Amino acid sequence: MIAFDKETIKNLEYLNKINLVNSACGYKSANLIGTKSKAGISNLAIFSSVTHFGSEPAIYGFVLRPTTVRRNTYDNIKETGIFTLNPVFEEKISDAHHTSAKYADETSEFDKTSFTEEYKENWNAPFVKNAPLQIAMKFLEEVHIKANGTILILASVEKIHVRKEMVSEDYFINLSKGKIAAISGLDAYSVPEKISRFPYQRPKK
Amino acid sequence: MIAFDKETIKNLEYLNKINLVNSACGYKSANLIGTKSKAGISNLAIFSSVTHFGSEPAIYGFVLRPTTVRRNTYDNIKETGIFTLNPVFEEKISDAHHTSAKYADETSEFDKTSFTEEYKENWNAPFVKNAPLQIAMKFLEEVHIKANGTILILASVEKIHVRKEMVSEDYFINLSKGKIAAISGLDAYSVPEKISRFPYQRPKK
Repeated sequence: MIAFDKETIKNLEYLNKINLVNSACGYKSANLIGTKSKAGISNLAIFSSVTHFGSEPAIYGFVLRPTTVRRNTYDNIKETGIFTLNPVFEEKISDAHHTSAKYADETSEFDKTSFTEEYKENWNAPFVKNAPLQIAMKFLEEVHIKANGTILILASVEKIHVRKEMVSEDYFINLSKGKIAAISGLDAYSVPEKISRFPYQRPKK
Repeated sequence: MIAFDKETIKNLEYLNKINLVNSACGYKSANLIGTKSKAGISNLAIFSSVTHFGSEPAIYGFVLRPTTVRRNTYDNIKETGIFTLNPVFEEKISDAHHTSAKYADETSEFDKTSFTEEYKENWNAPFVKNAPLQIAMKFLEEVHIKANGTILILASVEKIHVRKEMVSEDYFINLSKGKIAAISGLDAYSVPEKISRFPYQRPKK
């Protein structure tokens, strides 16, 4: 084993530091967040911080860093109150990763990648066409984290669209059947092939 | 595609609902949190919500649900200010999942699984012996989420211990070299085998 203490981490060269700290906490979800500004410009951006916060009611959260230029997503959500979540899937990992490029505000990532906007049932935020899962989300609350000024966005799950063959009898969604990716670190993608489920655990006698 | 709207989700049978909502947001990190009470009772519990919040300084967060009985982790962190993060790895997935069983407060999960406590350098929270990664964490801040009463715990990374062969030249930790697992839903584990890294993206001309 090798060890990196706080002082060593702090003094690492910037890219090394963010590689180390971003990869040590484990696999992360890979989601494309679709939004549209009031002026009608659509936006698509990749996030690895979408996290489950509750099922009754269904709430997810994700983290925005104030220091990055990824403000379109935040501004559009604050303007319209809505967004979409679309998982990164194997066929489109390269395009999904490209949404991390810093385009000008008036540029839509849908015009710079092979992704196509899809609108459903008057939901005025773009879904990613052909994504195996598409989730309509509504803004609930933002939390400013004192420790580092990041913003946690909490939002309610309004509607889940999912390929029928991915849904098990007990409503578990098998992500591997949709070839959905996980992220590690800043730039690494995996598509897990095998999923093993375990029974509910009770204390041993 | 099939669709589940908010009302449909709300009215699902409880287990179906938590399966659906927990699996739709994508792959999640799989970490064992090690703590010790002031009275000296160790605790080990599995969490799928550990998320990266920042690298300068290095901060991770995780979510606690007030309605579950997983309070030992919270109480111990509030008493001592420290904990450890240890990823779930392939060989021990079954034992890791067993830490979700609801044992009495005076029972240590280390006594009910094959995991062994390891103490390093006067850090008075137990690491999981032989885990490919072991992280010493210090409590920073707790945030109460208005939307559903969950608690977000923010903590600073104090020291990262990691197997040397997992660390790339640019300090990216290759989780697949440690056979580290990801979680989906409540009870499903994957061990991604292949990791593909992509270059930093700049706007296309």
